[in-house]
Order: sequence, then structure tokens, then C-alpha cells
Amino acid sequence: MTLTVSINNDRRLQLAPLQIPTRLLLGPGPSNAHPAVLQAMNTPPVGHLDPAFLALMDEIQTLLRYVWQTENSHTIAVSGTGTAAMEATIANSVEPGDVVLVGVMGYFGNRLVDMAGRYGADVRSISKPWGEVFSLDELRTAMATHRPAILALVHAETSTGARQPLEGVGDLCREFNCLLLVDTVTSLGGVPIFLDEWGVDLAYSCSQKGLGCPPGASPFTMSPRAAEKLQQRRHKVANWYLDMTLLSKYWGSDRIYHHTAPINLYYALREALRLIAEEGLENCWQRHQKNAEYLWQGLEDLELTLHVPREFRLPTLTTVRIPEGVDGKAISRQLLSEYNIEIGGGLGELAGKVWRVGLMGFNSRPESVDRLLEVLRQVLPK
Amino acid sequence: MTLTVSINNDRRLQLAPLQIPTRLLLGPGPSNAHPAVLQAMNTPPVGHLDPAFLALMDEIQTLLRYVWQTENSHTIAVSGTGTAAMEATIANSVEPGDVVLVGVMGYFGNRLVDMAGRYGADVRSISKPWGEVFSLDELRTAMATHRPAILALVHAETSTGARQPLEGVGDLCREFNCLLLVDTVTSLGGVPIFLDEWGVDLAYSCSQKGLGCPPGASPFTMSPRAAEKLQQRRHKVANWYLDMTLLSKYWGSDRIYHHTAPINLYYALREALRLIAEEGLENCWQRHQKNAEYLWQGLEDLELTLHVPREFRLPTLTTVRIPEGVDGKAISRQLLSEYNIEIGGGLGELAGKVWRVGLMGFNSRPESVDRLLEVLRQVLPK
Repeated sequence: MTLTVSINNDRRLQLAPLQIPTRLLLGPGPSNAHPAVLQAMNTPPVGHLDPAFLALMDEIQTLLRYVWQTENSHTIAVSGTGTAAMEATIANSVEPGDVVLVGVMGYFGNRLVDMAGRYGADVRSISKPWGEVFSLDELRTAMATHRPAILALVHAETSTGARQPLEGVGDLCREFNCLLLVDTVTSLGGVPIFLDEWGVDLAYSCSQKGLGCPPGASPFTMSPRAAEKLQQRRHKVANWYLDMTLLSKYWGSDRIYHHTAPINLYYALREALRLIAEEGLENCWQRHQKNAEYLWQGLEDLELTLHVPREFRLPTLTTVRIPEGVDGKAISRQLLSEYNIEIGGGLGELAGKVWRVGLMGFNSRPESVDRLLEVLRQVLPK
Repeated sequence: MTLTVSINNDRRLQLAPLQIPTRLLLGPGPSNAHPAVLQAMNTPPVGHLDPAFLALMDEIQTLLRYVWQTENSHTIAVSGTGTAAMEATIANSVEPGDVVLVGVMGYFGNRLVDMAGRYGADVRSISKPWGEVFSLDELRTAMATHRPAILALVHAETSTGARQPLEGVGDLCREFNCLLLVDTVTSLGGVPIFLDEWGVDLAYSCSQKGLGCPPGASPFTMSPRAAEKLQQRRHKVANWYLDMTLLSKYWGSDRIYHHTAPINLYYALREALRLIAEEGLENCWQRHQKNAEYLWQGLEDLELTLHVPREFRLPTLTTVRIPEGVDGKAISRQLLSEYNIEIGGGLGELAGKVWRVGLMGFNSRPESVDRLLEVLRQVLPK
């Protein structure tokens, strides 16, 4: 090999091996992965068409159906983080000109608006102050006004900690011949979900919250009604990487190469789902609820105010109002740098007004709550 | 927590912890990750806005510039596999109606054609039999005919093992006021690349080949000329997840949240790049060349024919013609099931005609070659 150009070594950093502090991740995600999940992830990769890997993909599909409580055959993990799975639901369901109605009650509703617009949707939105949720009557009125092809709602709004009830919404969507698309990023694994019972047609999530896995492989599901709309498209899906007509040939029985999956993340996801199946979904939901209630009590004992009314509060993510006169950012910084605890700040309407405390997956444990409360007692002004 | 719906346990698989065979991955990728890379990946995740993680992102950017030999400020890793990075180059550079000229000399050229079409490009293509490459004269003629806004070429065609020379192509593109987009998926880290010297405007790669990392975080770079075209777009980028106007605010000094990065894969990528910087880029390229030549000699000693002329042969990936009367698929299956060695089969024009043998990253070692040749001697008909 003879090089006619000489190598520029200006950017040849000489680094030491990785040194990363160990944090207790009590923000909006990622949460700490279960140690058994990290161990599974560490298994040397095999090929993306290896029979051993294809068998593992089938296990992931089955277990995702279990945690989502769905029979949808189109249930896979997308090779990207939660936002990629969000985009997969939009890209595969929206055709240019479709009316998409988005219920905006926080940051991620706005993201759906932006995304649907990029796929050519005629986007309409209804909104609620951040921390509130829509009633079924409000949704019915909006459906009658806009007559959308797709209604998009956020089950668990990560920016506010509010849980949007979904009972009855699927029936409403069928009445208006509309698909129901739902964000379950901060609910899957930690909050009761019954996708089929609720008539949800498209849903997405992530791996690094209720499932207790590192980020990077993200659940996606699509009902037979949504699959039918996809079949009848007039245009190709405007996103090659996330096109379910192609991805189905890899995840389904054809096993046609589409892309090289992030093999090790699938190892991790399989282990995370296996642990939930071992614990049992109901036990897992109960655990999240119990630890959240323990946290809420502790925060109230510290005379802190919780932002979302109890009825609509997510067990996975709690928004805590920053007390008058307290510098919320300084407290978060202190928690991270002095105590290795991450909590989140507010976004959008809630920027500077709340902290966001997550108890998700492996981190939904009394020890997490005890540690956080102990530290808050030390750092909050008396 | 009271559930009004009962949980369906039909899909509650009771699985044992992960058991995956250890394979020697000598196909078109993934290749085996370096053990130190797997170890780094196993570090517990921190948050995507943690100062420790932001510092690591900066290191990745600098080292990607080193391995690509570029000064492009827009040099990042996309949160998906190589195909996502490919799509990022298309999504950010193509506006509806742009003429995109694609040089097709294998499977991945065709993928670029499909992808560019989905982003509204007026796609033109020129083609070569699989295994051949374009001459500068052929490219000049095609440029004069089509006058494209973007010329897309595959530096290292993973489906054929051919290396497209790029010297002079950047000058040609400047002469025609056109951007040069290049696939370096199977070349980065293993084949000499001088992006700036060659005048490449957009390039993408993957982590699981020459870089010796698991798949899932994929290099992307964009020159100031490409960034200017992005700035001047009339429409939003039709892909939210891969929109560089948004991603730049996360990877740049603004540090605005965009999506949750696959944290652990970035740990792995940082370690993989660190190891290349330690070895030195020229040494790394020399190692790939030397081990490939050792393989080629060994295959020829077995009376096998290599598909690509020596001058254009990739050191990272070798296509070997399946001898007359030999069942190529049966041999591959036997290698995998009896010897835990993965090699690839042919795609498209080369389906059933070649095997694809990769020597990439950590696997570019004499031991890999020796083991493969030893096994081939046993399984090939005498």
C-alpha cells in the first residue's frame, strides 16, 4: 500500500480507556439498565441473519406483544431510539394530505405535530395546559370538527408526567373511521396498557425506561387496520430505514436482509423483556405504582407540591414543582456532581418550574426513593 | 392499582437467559467487536445530557474526523445502523426535484436510487456489471449528460468487494457545481480514505466493519458546501430523526435535547476509535491490506478465483467465485453450523455466484485467515 497523500494527525486524540461515573438515573430516561441486561448485551455479536439471532428476534416479538397486550403480528423493535419508533408510526401511516389530529398536552405532542407535517399531513391539533389530559368528550368534539384519518395521543407525556386515559378512545376512532396512534414511551412496562382492548392501531415506545434496558432498540406495533392502510398506500413510505413493508420481510418469515440490526441491543432487549415475563406484567406494574406512591408521600413530607393531579399521575415519572425562590437548575447540578444522581428539569411550558423524577424499570425500587429523599433533605433550603 | 381488564398471558414466554454461540464473523459485517470495545459498552449508561457523555460525544467527533481525514465540523454518529446514516446523507442533501446521479455497481447503489426517489429526487443512474468500477471519463460523460445536483458513489461496494477510485471525482463535481456523496460503509477504518483531499461533501459509514465495534451508531459527515445547501432548503428535512439542523444543536455547543442517544453504543464507538488512534490510521490500513493479501494468496492456493481484479479489490471484503458444481449455500451453512464461522453469500447479480469474505477491524488478523483456509480445505470438494 503506497499512499500519495500524507495523513493528517491533528485529530489523532490519544485517550485513556473510558472512565464514566456511575450515576443513579432518576430523570425522564434513560434509567439504569438491569445488571443482567448489561451482561446479556456484552455477548459477542453474531450476524443479523444468523439462525440464533433470528430465533431471538421471534422471542422479542412475542414478548413485546405480551408487554403491550396485543396480538398484532406487526410488532417489532426498530433499530433506533424511541424517536425513531415514533417516526416509524408516522411514516408508515401518514400519506400526503391525510388529516392528522394531534392531542398536544406537552413536548412530545408538539414533536408529533412537527413530524406528521414533514410527511405531508394536514395537521390539526388540540391542546391542554401541560400537566392536564383530554376528556373523552373533548376528543369527540375535536374528532367531529376535524374528521381525521389518524388521531395521535400521548399515553404518558414524558414532559409533564401526565397519563392520558385511553378507555373508549379506540371506539371513538372506529366510529369516525380513524386510526388511533399512541405514544407509550414512558408507559410501556411501568403503567397498565391494553393495546388491543383499547383499540390502539399504532404504538411506539423505547427500551430505556419501563423496560430497564439501554436505549437504541425501540418497540413498534401496528394493528391489522393500520397494516391495511399501509398496503393501500399510493406512494412508497417516505422513509427507507423505517418502511414496514420492507422491515416486515426481515422480521417475518421471508428473512430478507434490510439493514444490520444493532445486534447487542437486541440481546439486551430480549433479556429485559425476559425479566418482565419472569416477574409478571401485573407485578411489574404494581411495583411501579407502589414505589411511585412511596416517592409521592416522601416528596409531600418535604412540603413539595406535585404538578399532576393524583388521578392522572404517571407512576413512572413524577413532576415536582420547584419551590418559590429555589434555583432548580442549581439543585439538579448539585445532585449530579456531588451525589451522582440525575433528575430532569422542565421542558417548554414547564421549563424552570418543575423537576422530573423517574422511577422506571430496574430503578423502580424503594432504595432509589430512599436515596433521592435523603439527598433532597440535605440540599433543599430548610 | 385495580385492573378492570385481565392480563392475557398467552405470550408470556418463560425463557432461559441468553445463550448465543460464539461465531467468527468473516462475512460482509458485522465483524467481531474488539474485546475492549465490548467491555467499554458494558459500562452502565448515563444520561444523554450528562457532562461526561457530552465530553465523550466531542471525542467521537474528533476521532471520526481523524479516521475520515476531514475537517468537517458536521461530523457525528447517527443513532442507527449504516442504513440510517446513508438515509441521513440523502435526507439532508436532497430537495424535491433535485437531479441525483447514482453510480450503480452493486446492491448499495440500487439502495441509494430507491432512497433518493423517496425524498423526491429526479434520480438518474449509470451502471456497471457487479464487480467493476467507473472510470473518471465515464463519470465525466454522465455528469455532462445529467447535470446533477448530487453525484452519489459507493466507495466500497459491500455486495461486490470492489473499490471505486475517488481521486479526481471531487474536482469534477466542483466543475459541474455538484455535491459528491459517498458510501464508505465497508471502507472506513480499513481502506485509505482522504475525504477532504478527494473533495467529498457527504459521507456515511457504519460501526461494525472496519471500526471493530458492534452495530448501531453510524458515522455521518457533511462538508461546508453540503451544509450551505442544507441552510438554503426551501422545505424542512423530510425526516425528523435524521434532520441535521436539529442534530447539530445537540452535537454542537447548544446541547439542545433531540433524542436519547444509544448511550452504550457511543461508549463502544469511542473505544473502537480510540484503539484506531492508538494503532495509527496508516498502520490500521496496512494491517487490513496485508491480511487481505494473505487471504487472497491462500484462496488462490486452493484454486479459487477472486471476482474483482486486484487493482480494485477491497482489503476489507473479498468476493470469491463459487466453483462450478459446488453448492455455495450448503458450504456457508456448514461453516456456520459445524465451525461457527460466518461468511456471506452473493446478492443480486452475484446471488449464488460468490461468497463474500470479510476481514474487518478486529477480525483483520492472520489467525482469522488461517482458520478460514483450514476449514475451507476440509469442506471444499477435492
